[in-house]
Amino acid sequence: MTVSPDAWQRRVEWPLAVAALVFLAAYSWLVLDPGLPTTVRRTLVLLDYATWALFAIDYAMRVLLAGGGLRGRLSYLRHHLLDLLIVLLPVLRPLRLLRLIALLRFIDRRASKSLQGRVAVYVALSTVLVLYAGALAELAAERGAPGANIETFGTSLWWAVTTITTVGYGDVYPVTTEGRWVAAALMVAGVALLGVVTASLASWFVARVRRDEPPAEPTVHPEVIALRAEVRELTAELRVHRAGREPPGS
Amino acid sequence: MTVSPDAWQRRVEWPLAVAALVFLAAYSWLVLDPGLPTTVRRTLVLLDYATWALFAIDYAMRVLLAGGGLRGRLSYLRHHLLDLLIVLLPVLRPLRLLRLIALLRFIDRRASKSLQGRVAVYVALSTVLVLYAGALAELAAERGAPGANIETFGTSLWWAVTTITTVGYGDVYPVTTEGRWVAAALMVAGVALLGVVTASLASWFVARVRRDEPPAEPTVHPEVIALRAEVRELTAELRVHRAGREPPGS
Amino acid sequence: MTVSPDAWQRRVEWPLAVAALVFLAAYSWLVLDPGLPTTVRRTLVLLDYATWALFAIDYAMRVLLAGGGLRGRLSYLRHHLLDLLIVLLPVLRPLRLLRLIALLRFIDRRASKSLQGRVAVYVALSTVLVLYAGALAELAAERGAPGANIETFGTSLWWAVTTITTVGYGDVYPVTTEGRWVAAALMVAGVALLGVVTASLASWFVARVRRDEPPAEPTVHPEVIALRAEVRELTAELRVHRAGREPPGS
Amino acid sequence: MTVSPDAWQRRVEWPLAVAALVFLAAYSWLVLDPGLPTTVRRTLVLLDYATWALFAIDYAMRVLLAGGGLRGRLSYLRHHLLDLLIVLLPVLRPLRLLRLIALLRFIDRRASKSLQGRVAVYVALSTVLVLYAGALAELAAERGAPGANIETFGTSLWWAVTTITTVGYGDVYPVTTEGRWVAAALMVAGVALLGVVTASLASWFVARVRRDEPPAEPTVHPEVIALRAEVRELTAELRVHRAGREPPGS
Repeated sequence: MTVSPDAWQRRVEWPLAVAALVFLAAYSWLVLDPGLPTTVRRTLVLLDYATWALFAIDYAMRVLLAGGGLRGRLSYLRHHLLDLLIVLLPVLRPLRLLRLIALLRFIDRRASKSLQGRVAVYVALSTVLVLYAGALAELAAERGAPGANIETFGTSLWWAVTTITTVGYGDVYPVTTEGRWVAAALMVAGVALLGVVTASLASWFVARVRRDEPPAEPTVHPEVIALRAEVRELTAELRVHRAGREPPGS
Repeated sequence: MTVSPDAWQRRVEWPLAVAALVFLAAYSWLVLDPGLPTTVRRTLVLLDYATWALFAIDYAMRVLLAGGGLRGRLSYLRHHLLDLLIVLLPVLRPLRLLRLIALLRFIDRRASKSLQGRVAVYVALSTVLVLYAGALAELAAERGAPGANIETFGTSLWWAVTTITTVGYGDVYPVTTEGRWVAAALMVAGVALLGVVTASLASWFVARVRRDEPPAEPTVHPEVIALRAEVRELTAELRVHRAGREPPGS
Repeated sequence: MTVSPDAWQRRVEWPLAVAALVFLAAYSWLVLDPGLPTTVRRTLVLLDYATWALFAIDYAMRVLLAGGGLRGRLSYLRHHLLDLLIVLLPVLRPLRLLRLIALLRFIDRRASKSLQGRVAVYVALSTVLVLYAGALAELAAERGAPGANIETFGTSLWWAVTTITTVGYGDVYPVTTEGRWVAAALMVAGVALLGVVTASLASWFVARVRRDEPPAEPTVHPEVIALRAEVRELTAELRVHRAGREPPGS
Repeated sequence: MTVSPDAWQRRVEWPLAVAALVFLAAYSWLVLDPGLPTTVRRTLVLLDYATWALFAIDYAMRVLLAGGGLRGRLSYLRHHLLDLLIVLLPVLRPLRLLRLIALLRFIDRRASKSLQGRVAVYVALSTVLVLYAGALAELAAERGAPGANIETFGTSLWWAVTTITTVGYGDVYPVTTEGRWVAAALMVAGVALLGVVTASLASWFVARVRRDEPPAEPTVHPEVIALRAEVRELTAELRVHRAGREPPGS
């Protein structure tokens, strides 16, 4: 009994979204409460690895189900590089958060139907998620570093907001290499956010302006006009024909 | 004598806009003049509560008029969450300023007809209102806080301008939690502002480019061409027919 | 011999552009060389007033030529508020630079034909002009103020670039009220710049995408198909008719 | 045997891209390792001049091949000013990096077919190249200057990212004139980046919204309806005609 990769993906959508949430909770607790007892800390780290394992299994299954032999599988790998990164890169700590993409995909599929409505919901939710995850990762990277000025979650969140909106006051900023990578990711997210908001508004405006335009006149094709003249001529011909055939007093 | 929620809303548009203005004046005075005598201060706070009461009554009336039983009313609540927030959240001080949305709606209905003209007027007026209200709320939040650098209305307005345009020099910036929430709101307004300005310009450009394009050729449908050939054939047929029937010298 | 306001405007385009250039040169010299001898300084200030007088005369002439009695003139005033501001507000020092709009208009009329080409030339030239004029005005406002950090033209230009692109490092920033107004104007120019660049690119992309789309199929209208069937039927009818009339061996 | 400038350009595309890469490698080594032995340093500087010579030869060849006499050649010069700048301006050190445009052109020609796909690849690759080259040039300009705070490649890259995204924290910033010109170039790149990302998204949205719209009803032209009526009338006419001609019992 074989399943297509798409059918598999539909089936595991729920479990993966739950796994991403569990991971987010565990990661949040780990970062936000540095004074955790060792047992709790170990359990949370275990949960982290467990969700990672789920994502790795999911990816392996999809590659197996892709079919088409080695070649088909390599092609599948090539077209799903982001998923491969999510699985391969948990070693680089902040990249673990890429697992949250499973959540974003989950939201995307369940969002409302109209394009602009979907974009609005998606942008709002993913911005909140990116801000929260980015602030977490930044705090984890910066806290305790020499010269660091992001030492609490509140400050980290404030920094994340000033970064994603590209305001960048510079009252607080990352000083570690890891923290700067997280910052770069947030900046890219900010550029994308600005782009999506603007593009969505622009498409709405363009559609509005087009709707307000007078509709194009139905064009009378000269071919049709010529045709009508010919039919009229034909009718006249036929009347003459009939008049000639009929006896005057019939 | 029942009224529809829409008819009600048209009727109370004026009073609510006036109430929002009164509230803005009272709030401005309260914030800008910290050395007010207690009686004046109390009167202004009373005015604040009075305008809040007007908005609460308006919302309650609209829910009542919505009809459709409990279900219809809950649906109305769900579709007018922003108005609900305006009524429920005056406790969080800066959110009182959401009452000014009544002013923005008032402007929106009375703006000029063309889409781009409307957007220009609306963007200009709402940016000024957001800047003024944001600077007020920021000053109220920051003044007197330890380490604060926004201590006068002039500085607060300057900060608001650098924030909404996403420039963010960082010469002054909020340090309190409340002030940072106000800042986040201004940043979101800034992203929206950039988006609306760009989108409005883009729709204008797109319309201009389309107008300059050569209009699509009226397409001659092959069906019409075939039809014309058939009619011509028919006419020829009829002429042959008539020539055969008529006596040579008629 | 009366002239329409438009004909007048075409005629004075050249002199006003030259006047704006003269003013820019005089203003630049005044600001950039604070150690000018008094006589030179007085001459430059005179030039400043002389160009202002030219703009005032031009505006007065246009109002006079507008016709339509007092009412027509007031309507003209209302539709050319920006020009009125240029004339009325030279008292507020940096607003004198609004006279440079005459230069921008001059460029606008002489730019290339295609919309995107025109926008590119116009954006580039007006950005350079705004940067130069903004840096001058900022330097004039800030130099010598207590706590100021913009003291040379180079720094002022650097500040103007960081401001108009909304980067805003905050290594230098205005501290005087006048300087902050100039900064706000540059920020607004920056938002407009971003908007125009993006909108122009977007219209180009939209046009490209539309050009690449397969053209809409010429729609066969069912009405035309029915018509063809009827004509075919008619032809058949006529053939039957003719066959019946003709003698078998003719 | 003459070759057209376009054919020449296609032929030298590969060698020029390789030359640009060699130059980038040599320049990177020169900037990143200030403690190079003199012989290595001299070799790298030689490589720099050698690639410059290649670009100069390429440009001279294209001008020669352009044909059309002196006039045609001057016209070619005027339409390829950017290439002229690349050749003429290696004296201004950071402008040497303009040679990398050969790389960007190379990428552009080999990118995928769909417009959005091409833009995505092109934006990503050119952003990375601009960031790397900008950080190199900034480091070369700033390192060792009095008061400079960009002293390592890591910091320079971090600064380049905060600049191109227009975030601009201001924790590090250029202080030399050369460094500020490099910064201005990166800011312009940032504005263009934002514009291209947004415009590309907007065109995608606009196309999506248009695809989701109900297709325009095929308009029944009144001319066609009138024609059908006439043909029907004609058929009826013919039937009457035939009935009258035929003997009752045939």
